[in-house]
Amino acid sequence: MSLKEGRTIYLDNAATTPMCDEASQALSEALAPAFFNPSAKYTQSAGVFERINKARALIKGALGGSLGEVYFNSGGTEGNNTVLFGAKGRKGSRIIIGEGEHDSVYAPAMELKNSGYDVRIAPIYTDGSVNFEKFKTLLNENVSLVSIMHVSNETGAINDIAKFVRATKKVAPDAIFHSDGVQSFLKLPLSVAALGVDAYTITAHKIHGPKGIGALYVKRGAKIKPLILGGGQEYNFRSGTESSPLICSFAAAVQKECNDLSENYSKISKYREYFVKKLQENIPNITIITPLENSIPNILSVAFADVRGEVLLHSLEEDGILVGTGSACASHHESRFKRLFGLDEAHLEGVIRFSFASENDISEADYVAERVAARVIELSRTVRQ
Amino acid sequence: MSLKEGRTIYLDNAATTPMCDEASQALSEALAPAFFNPSAKYTQSAGVFERINKARALIKGALGGSLGEVYFNSGGTEGNNTVLFGAKGRKGSRIIIGEGEHDSVYAPAMELKNSGYDVRIAPIYTDGSVNFEKFKTLLNENVSLVSIMHVSNETGAINDIAKFVRATKKVAPDAIFHSDGVQSFLKLPLSVAALGVDAYTITAHKIHGPKGIGALYVKRGAKIKPLILGGGQEYNFRSGTESSPLICSFAAAVQKECNDLSENYSKISKYREYFVKKLQENIPNITIITPLENSIPNILSVAFADVRGEVLLHSLEEDGILVGTGSACASHHESRFKRLFGLDEAHLEGVIRFSFASENDISEADYVAERVAARVIELSRTVRQ
Repeated sequence: MSLKEGRTIYLDNAATTPMCDEASQALSEALAPAFFNPSAKYTQSAGVFERINKARALIKGALGGSLGEVYFNSGGTEGNNTVLFGAKGRKGSRIIIGEGEHDSVYAPAMELKNSGYDVRIAPIYTDGSVNFEKFKTLLNENVSLVSIMHVSNETGAINDIAKFVRATKKVAPDAIFHSDGVQSFLKLPLSVAALGVDAYTITAHKIHGPKGIGALYVKRGAKIKPLILGGGQEYNFRSGTESSPLICSFAAAVQKECNDLSENYSKISKYREYFVKKLQENIPNITIITPLENSIPNILSVAFADVRGEVLLHSLEEDGILVGTGSACASHHESRFKRLFGLDEAHLEGVIRFSFASENDISEADYVAERVAARVIELSRTVRQ
Repeated sequence: MSLKEGRTIYLDNAATTPMCDEASQALSEALAPAFFNPSAKYTQSAGVFERINKARALIKGALGGSLGEVYFNSGGTEGNNTVLFGAKGRKGSRIIIGEGEHDSVYAPAMELKNSGYDVRIAPIYTDGSVNFEKFKTLLNENVSLVSIMHVSNETGAINDIAKFVRATKKVAPDAIFHSDGVQSFLKLPLSVAALGVDAYTITAHKIHGPKGIGALYVKRGAKIKPLILGGGQEYNFRSGTESSPLICSFAAAVQKECNDLSENYSKISKYREYFVKKLQENIPNITIITPLENSIPNILSVAFADVRGEVLLHSLEEDGILVGTGSACASHHESRFKRLFGLDEAHLEGVIRFSFASENDISEADYVAERVAARVIELSRTVRQ
């Protein structure tokens, strides 16, 4: 089996995605006409301001955000930092985050812990989702902030956020509930109003938009202080000259992914299902970490026996197949997660995250599965020798 | 006198600039090949990481930043916030900022004041530059942070930063000295090493680069904590997936403006000199706020008698001439500055900021001056009637 020489199969879409044509085109088209500073007073600036608000309305619609507002920022990391630092209650109050949160939630939480907050970590199951029963035991009336990601970036597992919100508000009605939606936005049908969250983080570059732009949904009345102060842009929530071209490009990506959501969901689901079957047929002793029945179809985390993930990644690269070994952002330091997946020693170092997008056609799945199997068998032999 | 129908003369370059072809092209070219997450482990990612570091080296060179490092962020507002919140010393220590600082320095300083810091405001002269003698009286060994802008965004006045740094370090050797260089970078020859600053803020969109990207220079050893925490990008100083295409585009703009700096400086200086002469010849009773002998040539702030700046702005718009009334970011609220310029009642409301770039050709200066004169005379008659 072979693919056209030089072709790259990109299966690391949870790390970042290539921009779609619609987003690239919107970016190019906006550069010149939307260069004016939206805060200036002439007509052209009002036009730019209008473009920004049109994009805002579109994204708010895609989020089901009628109960609040959407504020643009520089991306998911800023969004998560804004909530953690801006929604914390008085010193000493309790802050609960999931054990599997992205570093951009985890690191601010650790900073808050060091500065006198009662930060508690809600344990995750070995599939990456938060253990609801254990979560509930952490709730008390002293909770000021909860941050539980909607979908795990490591495994694709979905947390039933509405359930977590209800449990939280029952015990601590004034607590701010935030969910990091970076991996869920436009990967599954979504309404932040229905979830009941006070804040929800999204970013463009995970949905075929540009890097450097994201947004935070904030429910009306939720008390979150800005992280970045200054000229009062974004309705005084996020100062700094708006990157109107990036905003227009973000909106174009959202529109496209919105239109294609159900088609993509079905296409990617079939791909993953077929791919898992092929892997299981061809590779002995593999562990599927991702909970296939409770995850977005875009992510598949697998642990291979007697193989080092990073070595496998590089050998697949020779076959033109690009995969991840978990959160790209954490790639330079030891992942906190390996130990959490409940893997035995043989599988512990062998975790690979395949992450799919609509560009991945099922016709390639046989080739990928065949190459993965060949590489795993070859590498595990070396280890066992 | 007339210009080609429909042509716009943009004289608000201190608010923002159109992107140069080099920056647009670099952005377009980087979008596809540089989409990979620079933190991932395959070769393509290493390539993106290399592009980022090449851009970093180029910008560091343009800053004369050999004594420190350049960290990318989302723009000037973030850079200023990072220093104010990240370099503050212990609670109660003294923080000095200039009276004319941009809101992205001023607002964080007010926040720090409210949380227990001894924030002092160094007064400015009526030309927008900081009064050095009064500044010195604020120095004591309790100073932890000083932030004085290199060039006033309101008037173009240059502060002799090296002198302020020496005075500060003499009294408070461990204080962090920051300068907001958003309006100075590539508008005058510059070496942050020679200035002696610990930190220096720059942004791309003021120098014909894209919006949404900037950088902070930090001198080696200067203790500044990150504002945004997470995956540890930018050498652990600024987390969040890097916008590599914007970074490449920023670098292209820097390279172009670096190459053209002395030519542009001379061209814009001649334009301003000629333009001022024409205004003075044709309009009675105007006050030049900008200190012509101690300013970047790009900015000219003028107060007209018996005219409202905003009304003049809109009437010039009808002539295809776009100007500012001061910091665009502050356009939605009353400028703090009007009262600081020492204007009499007749001139108080009549401030216009003309800001030039190399696209502004001296051949247009007669037309602009003539239209300004006609509009001012027309409007001031209405007021006096």
